[in-house]
Amino acid sequence: MKDQVGVFAPATVANMICGYDILGFALERPGDEVQMRISERPGVHIVQISGDEGRLPMDPEKNTVSASVKALLKALGKEEIGLEIVLEKQMPIGSGLGSSAASTVAGLFAANYLLGEPLSRQELLPYAIMGEELACGFGHADNVAPSLLGGITLIRSYEPLEVINLPVPRDLHVSLIFPHVDVPTRDARKMIKEQVPLRGAVKQWGNVAGLVAGLYTSDYALIGRSMQDGLIEPVRSILIPEFEVLKKIALENKALTFGISGSGPSVFALSTDPATAMNIRNSLERHLTGVGIGCNAYVSRVNPHGPQILTNLAK
Amino acid sequence: MKDQVGVFAPATVANMICGYDILGFALERPGDEVQMRISERPGVHIVQISGDEGRLPMDPEKNTVSASVKALLKALGKEEIGLEIVLEKQMPIGSGLGSSAASTVAGLFAANYLLGEPLSRQELLPYAIMGEELACGFGHADNVAPSLLGGITLIRSYEPLEVINLPVPRDLHVSLIFPHVDVPTRDARKMIKEQVPLRGAVKQWGNVAGLVAGLYTSDYALIGRSMQDGLIEPVRSILIPEFEVLKKIALENKALTFGISGSGPSVFALSTDPATAMNIRNSLERHLTGVGIGCNAYVSRVNPHGPQILTNLAK
Repeated sequence: MKDQVGVFAPATVANMICGYDILGFALERPGDEVQMRISERPGVHIVQISGDEGRLPMDPEKNTVSASVKALLKALGKEEIGLEIVLEKQMPIGSGLGSSAASTVAGLFAANYLLGEPLSRQELLPYAIMGEELACGFGHADNVAPSLLGGITLIRSYEPLEVINLPVPRDLHVSLIFPHVDVPTRDARKMIKEQVPLRGAVKQWGNVAGLVAGLYTSDYALIGRSMQDGLIEPVRSILIPEFEVLKKIALENKALTFGISGSGPSVFALSTDPATAMNIRNSLERHLTGVGIGCNAYVSRVNPHGPQILTNLAK
Repeated sequence: MKDQVGVFAPATVANMICGYDILGFALERPGDEVQMRISERPGVHIVQISGDEGRLPMDPEKNTVSASVKALLKALGKEEIGLEIVLEKQMPIGSGLGSSAASTVAGLFAANYLLGEPLSRQELLPYAIMGEELACGFGHADNVAPSLLGGITLIRSYEPLEVINLPVPRDLHVSLIFPHVDVPTRDARKMIKEQVPLRGAVKQWGNVAGLVAGLYTSDYALIGRSMQDGLIEPVRSILIPEFEVLKKIALENKALTFGISGSGPSVFALSTDPATAMNIRNSLERHLTGVGIGCNAYVSRVNPHGPQILTNLAK
């Protein structure tokens, strides 16, 4: 049995515009890394966090990585095991790209690996959701599910939990922009009304059905037409600088669709080839820079793998 | 060019439980028949209606069949043509099985046929929706779309109108019961609240996505789990006698799912083989008869064809 492992877990785009709280996909990059080793000292310990600018707690009860790993050990009756965790944040926090989810998934995957893989990825999911509850105040699964399972995931039901992997059309490319403004997930959730018009909900589930059909048939135009959101986007986009201008730029540059990643402020566009994806990324970045807003910009494909074991271990 | 034609158009199950106003499927039986002939007398005339117990209007402006055919002729600039219509109602009115939709679709299909098929089925759809608006006070498409296009249809969007045929899993069987109580569509729609809880809507679009995924993968258990409705059914089922008992009977007899067809009072169950479908049908019928409620009972498969030309023409 190995006594140490490094794991990368991917960032994710939750909601996929029309599928609030039920859909999400994993990215090739960015993501987070966890180094974990079995130690003689019992208990779960965060020994180092890098790349977080001091924003994440080292207290093992409060850090979502250690807290979810502790819950896993407890459920498996392995609380006597000692684990030391190094968390390397390689992606922005509070970006709407599932930062806490990527760390949590990397940690759970690493711990499960070091224990000899007693649980499947699907079985790890409830522990990852517990981590999200700690991080965001609500145990949603639309970031942890794609980060853990890879690809495009549908949370068909929360009670009981049922997650389905949807097909990933081959030519789907993602352009991602994280504008440097602060939109805490907790606040972004609070803005959303508890009641929605039935007419709007009917429109939304028509689009969700269209998106799922488009994914199964690799119908990119249908995917684009279906990824619209008349319920959540109008509220959340208020917090995102230049949202309408960015949308216009993306669509003028052949994006299939453009919208908010998770609760924002990151935004993303889908397209069908790498050159278009890069062009959209550059156009959006150029506009934001022009109006004085810094950003991280990425292109990626949908990541079919989920977490991956790293071969180059930090010593 | 033919100068007369007989057309059968199928009854339909709208909503498919979780897909209010967007999903529906066509049945092999029951359905309605229209006999239509070109006449020297200009204008569209209803010359006979049978099987309606005198409930349907003969006035060509008020009858949905003639009114939609008139709109079609007008749009095609063929108002000089005379058409005589015999409508044979072979299915109950006010049943929640798309009775008006079946008649309207049969009429439009017949008229288009006699004109040399200037329009495709998809192009006939807006005229059928106009007929629904006349019949029910709301131009919904979840009955006319499957009656006209056959199979299982998704109305992805109303504005602009976009209808998609979803795959029909091979072993899907339908048990149908129309209890003899009156639930007018207009009233059934009025009962539904204009605002719904976001939590309930999220559950609903998770189920809609699960159903579409189940249809693409012929995953019958997933189809069954996904066909639940926590928003509309609790309100509408109040009007349907013995609803909860019937549901229990259906599920105990191996139904994948059980729910309301359209706005009711008809109810339906899905199962995966003809013997089970017949057994469910008989068990439901037996229960209703036992408590003194008459009903029509059917078994059917999903009808992939939509309207069909009849070879035995009435003279």
